[in-house]
Amino acid sequence: MVIFVASKNPHKIQEIKLVTPDHVILRPIESDWTVEENGETFLENSVLKAIEYGKCVGGPVLADDSGLSVDALDGFPGVMSARYLEGASYREKMESILELMKNVKNRSAKFVCCATYYDPNKPFLISVQGEVRGYISEEIRGEKGFGYDPIFIPEGYNKTFGELGEDIKKHISHRAVAFKKLFEILSSLGLI
Amino acid sequence: MVIFVASKNPHKIQEIKLVTPDHVILRPIESDWTVEENGETFLENSVLKAIEYGKCVGGPVLADDSGLSVDALDGFPGVMSARYLEGASYREKMESILELMKNVKNRSAKFVCCATYYDPNKPFLISVQGEVRGYISEEIRGEKGFGYDPIFIPEGYNKTFGELGEDIKKHISHRAVAFKKLFEILSSLGLI
Repeated sequence: MVIFVASKNPHKIQEIKLVTPDHVILRPIESDWTVEENGETFLENSVLKAIEYGKCVGGPVLADDSGLSVDALDGFPGVMSARYLEGASYREKMESILELMKNVKNRSAKFVCCATYYDPNKPFLISVQGEVRGYISEEIRGEKGFGYDPIFIPEGYNKTFGELGEDIKKHISHRAVAFKKLFEILSSLGLI
Repeated sequence: MVIFVASKNPHKIQEIKLVTPDHVILRPIESDWTVEENGETFLENSVLKAIEYGKCVGGPVLADDSGLSVDALDGFPGVMSARYLEGASYREKMESILELMKNVKNRSAKFVCCATYYDPNKPFLISVQGEVRGYISEEIRGEKGFGYDPIFIPEGYNKTFGELGEDIKKHISHRAVAFKKLFEILSSLGLI
């Protein structure tokens, strides 16, 4: 079966593909479709994207909203992760986060992903969250992954996601956890 | 366990109670909480209510959006069912529908209910739909039920929901179908 993915981000789509059952074919957005992500939580934005894109394609869709949440910054940048310092590169965004964390001892943080499946024909919608806990590194490290990966060290490791790359991320990342959970439920309900 | 219900309508809550597992206690809204139901579909309004009310109470909530959809009227009143002729009584609303259906041979219609569960703490959200197909009667009949029940004859019966009442509705109504489906999934996921 084919499921459309409400994302234009090739990194996201690749990470979802790595945990998608073999018989499910993911198809990214091909249009100029966009939606205002004005929700207060990852779940709200993920649901919003799934509903709007589901109406657009008229069939089952997946959506993802995700971000970095730093404990010492009260969860910042959180749902603002992608829009923080709008227009700036991720290197600039990471430098800014490291600056905010200068001399901060509590470096604990988490990556959060909310994964949503919506079929407008049944209709049916389900939204689950996945997390990975870890720490903000002292400097930017690694070229793999994307987004804030080079400043995030997952618990149990001493390298950043930017150094570890998809071989590790496909097992423990927030996105892997969320979509595995989602696909398990969809499979148990006979929907995929 | 206690689940709050994002509704002030005692009829709705009673109908949900009739299909709720014994160990789940439903608690209606006690505050002045209200939400603008500006979605295009039952699912959107149901999800909107669940998310807003879930944030308000900080724990698991149920929400319901439902309505009558008349085939010959292209699905009208649909998501507008409660707001159709705002301020008018349901007797006036039903009289208006019967007037629109005067001399219309195709009287097929359906009642639709979208049931949503949202737990802001996990977070987790699931939304399912239930329907009952039937016909619009020639006149208003029966005092039981609520809303448009007295002009809706479910398939396989020759009486309206207004005449049949909750003994039948708890088995076949759109709300019973939707919430039974929802509780079955929540139970299979170990959430209730």
